[in-house]
Amino acid sequence: MESLLRQSRAMCPFLKKTSPATLRSLSTSTAHNASPGGGSMSNLQLLGRRCPIMGKALAVQSAKNTNALLAGTYGGMRAYHSKVGRAKLHTSSPKEAQAVDIRVARHDKVPYPQSVKSAAVQQTTQQSGPPPSPQPVKFDYERFYQTELDKKHKDKSYRYFNNINRLAQEFPRAHMADKDARVTVWCSNDYLGMGRNPQVLKKMHETLDKYGSGAGGTRNISGHNQHAMSLEKTVADLHAKEAALVFSSCYVANDATLATLGSKFPDCVILSDSLNHASMIQGIRHSGAKKLVFRHNDVEDLEAKLASLPPDVPKIIAFESVYSMCGSVGPIEEICDLAEKYGAITFLDEVHAVGMYGAKGAGVAEHLDFEAHAAGKPKGTVMDRIDIITGTLGKAYGCVGGYIAGSARMVDAVRSLAPGFIFTTSLPPATMAGAQAAIEYQMNYQGDRRLQQLHTRAVKDAFEAKDIPVIPNPSHIVPLLVGNAEVAKQASDMLLEEHGIYVQAINYPTVPVGQERLRITPTPGHIREYRNELVDAVEAVWDKLGIKRTSDWAKEGGFIGVGEAEKVVPEPLWTDEQLGIDKVLKEMSAGGAVGVLETVLENERVEAAKLVSAAA
Amino acid sequence: MESLLRQSRAMCPFLKKTSPATLRSLSTSTAHNASPGGGSMSNLQLLGRRCPIMGKALAVQSAKNTNALLAGTYGGMRAYHSKVGRAKLHTSSPKEAQAVDIRVARHDKVPYPQSVKSAAVQQTTQQSGPPPSPQPVKFDYERFYQTELDKKHKDKSYRYFNNINRLAQEFPRAHMADKDARVTVWCSNDYLGMGRNPQVLKKMHETLDKYGSGAGGTRNISGHNQHAMSLEKTVADLHAKEAALVFSSCYVANDATLATLGSKFPDCVILSDSLNHASMIQGIRHSGAKKLVFRHNDVEDLEAKLASLPPDVPKIIAFESVYSMCGSVGPIEEICDLAEKYGAITFLDEVHAVGMYGAKGAGVAEHLDFEAHAAGKPKGTVMDRIDIITGTLGKAYGCVGGYIAGSARMVDAVRSLAPGFIFTTSLPPATMAGAQAAIEYQMNYQGDRRLQQLHTRAVKDAFEAKDIPVIPNPSHIVPLLVGNAEVAKQASDMLLEEHGIYVQAINYPTVPVGQERLRITPTPGHIREYRNELVDAVEAVWDKLGIKRTSDWAKEGGFIGVGEAEKVVPEPLWTDEQLGIDKVLKEMSAGGAVGVLETVLENERVEAAKLVSAAA
Repeated sequence: MESLLRQSRAMCPFLKKTSPATLRSLSTSTAHNASPGGGSMSNLQLLGRRCPIMGKALAVQSAKNTNALLAGTYGGMRAYHSKVGRAKLHTSSPKEAQAVDIRVARHDKVPYPQSVKSAAVQQTTQQSGPPPSPQPVKFDYERFYQTELDKKHKDKSYRYFNNINRLAQEFPRAHMADKDARVTVWCSNDYLGMGRNPQVLKKMHETLDKYGSGAGGTRNISGHNQHAMSLEKTVADLHAKEAALVFSSCYVANDATLATLGSKFPDCVILSDSLNHASMIQGIRHSGAKKLVFRHNDVEDLEAKLASLPPDVPKIIAFESVYSMCGSVGPIEEICDLAEKYGAITFLDEVHAVGMYGAKGAGVAEHLDFEAHAAGKPKGTVMDRIDIITGTLGKAYGCVGGYIAGSARMVDAVRSLAPGFIFTTSLPPATMAGAQAAIEYQMNYQGDRRLQQLHTRAVKDAFEAKDIPVIPNPSHIVPLLVGNAEVAKQASDMLLEEHGIYVQAINYPTVPVGQERLRITPTPGHIREYRNELVDAVEAVWDKLGIKRTSDWAKEGGFIGVGEAEKVVPEPLWTDEQLGIDKVLKEMSAGGAVGVLETVLENERVEAAKLVSAAA
Repeated sequence: MESLLRQSRAMCPFLKKTSPATLRSLSTSTAHNASPGGGSMSNLQLLGRRCPIMGKALAVQSAKNTNALLAGTYGGMRAYHSKVGRAKLHTSSPKEAQAVDIRVARHDKVPYPQSVKSAAVQQTTQQSGPPPSPQPVKFDYERFYQTELDKKHKDKSYRYFNNINRLAQEFPRAHMADKDARVTVWCSNDYLGMGRNPQVLKKMHETLDKYGSGAGGTRNISGHNQHAMSLEKTVADLHAKEAALVFSSCYVANDATLATLGSKFPDCVILSDSLNHASMIQGIRHSGAKKLVFRHNDVEDLEAKLASLPPDVPKIIAFESVYSMCGSVGPIEEICDLAEKYGAITFLDEVHAVGMYGAKGAGVAEHLDFEAHAAGKPKGTVMDRIDIITGTLGKAYGCVGGYIAGSARMVDAVRSLAPGFIFTTSLPPATMAGAQAAIEYQMNYQGDRRLQQLHTRAVKDAFEAKDIPVIPNPSHIVPLLVGNAEVAKQASDMLLEEHGIYVQAINYPTVPVGQERLRITPTPGHIREYRNELVDAVEAVWDKLGIKRTSDWAKEGGFIGVGEAEKVVPEPLWTDEQLGIDKVLKEMSAGGAVGVLETVLENERVEAAKLVSAAA
């Protein structure tokens, strides 16, 4: 038994720092705390209830004992219960020890400013017979909610939602509560303006009329249809995978898939990038699998963690292509190499990339082998090597919903096992038909995403020229570093109220404290007029609020890529060549022309307008 | 320490049945299993890894040690790793003990028919230097998926989805793969045919055109709009609550809300009806809260469990109004009484009731005080006493999405804390506008739900007359008892293929083994012609497959309410009076008329048709 104790002490922070003498004294039974289960209750056991591991086991055991007791010896449950008054909690009655224990544990955990007098809800019992004992104190739920909300207000993480009504015919403009006033939306994830795409809308109208507004059931019970089959086939084709499965959202897709695989694979270990989205974090938590977090985009750290695991243990590497809040891009190919080397599977979230990267819009994994995919030769490409790709239908594809794509067996297993897929109503036929139309549109037309990239470059260039701090990245995200929660919200409010520009402030917990930012997402609709407005407005706000410029950060040695002298700014994923502007840029720059990018953009704009009107 | 050990043994099934001598022998360190962390590794520790409680703690500790080791003393991770070959797993190398442990645990848990030769994927390493050791065996993911699928096939729980395309203009008809063939859908959860309601569709078309196909962001980042605000106000009004919050689905609403509250309330205990939906079960699991399952609809069992808990511990009673697979109805008022008595809050899932019960369609809780709500006086009603009501927009309201309704603080807390709400794209504006139109329509018009009830009565009566076993219940669900998974599927297939009638078989795990059934859901659109077809077809299938009749079950003493002589068949929730047929029924029955209900139904049908065409 000494060995057992030694092991326990090695693991348990409490046992580790407590002397044998203290343990011995604590383990002595105390008469006034005799357990309702009949056994004696030691102070050590009381402490054990606070332990996250032992506490649960003890509580379950104790509940069983108590129930057995109530069902058996004691019949008078009501009488028994109503006697457990507040004032008598610390008595020697064996029936009341349980209350003591849980009280100890809870009051220890929650810094909840509870005045018994004001917080307690007094109960009126209908007991007859002996004089009633003082009434039990009930938990005050409303007060608890208020306390949680107060915390949010205090640490500035309380969220105020802006009423933004994006207008399909005036993209990227919206109205707020006043239907006649206009603001320009600069932070939507309708990245390509597909939410107003005429082909998508036409398809949705037709499907609504023919098949109605809802699916009417789960996929198993009357909610499976040609729209689901066809959409899943399209998604599988997009990613050059055997199969795909559609979910209510990609939050659900990530959560359900990781939870299912992580819990089903025996002794699974999930290796998770430290900046992974909440949906993956939840999925991993829900799986109950072991989790190893590797430093963001750090393949050395990932390899160290992979190498620490036995080769035959199932492992999932969960990561993203474009990280939405900083615009950084995962080292997909290197991670595939490591996965193969160490026998892991890759789970790649392309939520902020599908529609926008690659020859067909399948995402960054496709983009890395642009030419191969353009030529319809996916075999052996990076995308081909990824085991599970997840994506959304609610951002660049302009609708709602999410999906996974991968091998036929994997998809069938998730389809068969994931409660979050099985027990929920299917997406409406019109949503699925619209999403499919959006994917197909983007598979056949690169103009929107090229324009998005050109606008992004223009915006980044303009901010750079004005010394406004853009967190550098190779993607379409333009994060402006503010570095303070209150100031970020002020800046956002000021842009909205004084300049008619909507850019949401991104604060903790979405980003770490001190890294608060404005996150700007240029789209094909953000033409020069809007871009100029944006840059001028941001500069005015930066001046007014005295927010640090890039040069200010540089003086302090730089921060998260901003003003860091030695930092290599990553090349954009979309190269000049892929954008088809390499020659023009070269020629015009050689001729000493200024505003080259803007000229290119005007041409693009005219072309895009032609296409849209042709499609309508 | 003896006391600690005694406590551990009382709780732990392993310690309980293992003699001290065995423990002592197991706890001796064994040289060949020395731990990578530097300490010695005992056989007891090896066993500890199999324990669901100790295993996790040990693994975390072990991973930490291993990582520290890799980062520190040992630099050559690649070399280290590639040497961990299959054949060398049981060597004395201190670096490989971890592999041994996890192998032991896994192989113990998973009955996975793995032939090392066929299942193992051999790895080609690019190692130079000393002769390569045997290649490590990697986990075979594809084989694992196949094994899981094989299990499903074997126990007949593998699901084959039927391609059902419900036609808005021909409700409740649909086409399958062949667009010209028609089947009648008898198992959709578009309970009232709102999926083809002209007012809903009109609203959706308008919203699509004006605001596009998607919300374009999370509620916090450009996805909050007038549609969300207005829909949530409507939902709150419907349930006479202060506030409401809309989610991607009610699966997500249940999961996110229970997980959030259950994890935030200190030491929360969740009391859960044994037939609760998967979404609640998942939410409770995800909360990490203590869970006590009470027997379905058994308020005595619930009270015993409540009484076993201290009064001041926060408690959530989670239950449903209409249980979808059997049609039973929760004892809502009694549960409210218990909740108040024991200081619990009530969490009521009205997913299969909203739109269909109550004066305004708010569900069963509203229905229990029909007149008070019809008069706009919700104070003190059962619905008023419920703390949290959850509902769906995807069934009787014909769209997609889910919600919670309750106090302003509760809703604001969930809004502020639940990742499943925060980090997901909002529902599309058109979906929210359509759902709101559906709720409002049903708030102002009872005809659809009255007709649904009348059709349900007609169907139940007809089956009763034919000795077809309907599991008795007071709701709109018509479950036909089959009692065998294969036969249930055969019956469903036969109805579809030979009779053009779609009724999905409900098998394990949705219902217990032996309780397999066909679940029929009559709607206002299931007029006499379809009902006659259904009853005739079911009778033919029952004959052909030799499925037990009610009288057969009765001979065996009855089963789950079918053929149970002493069983009181519950009165329908909708009374004759509420349906407005009490007088007619009385008069016509008194006059000796037959087919009274059918006559009433014809009248209803004419009225309903008028209303629909007026609305179009």
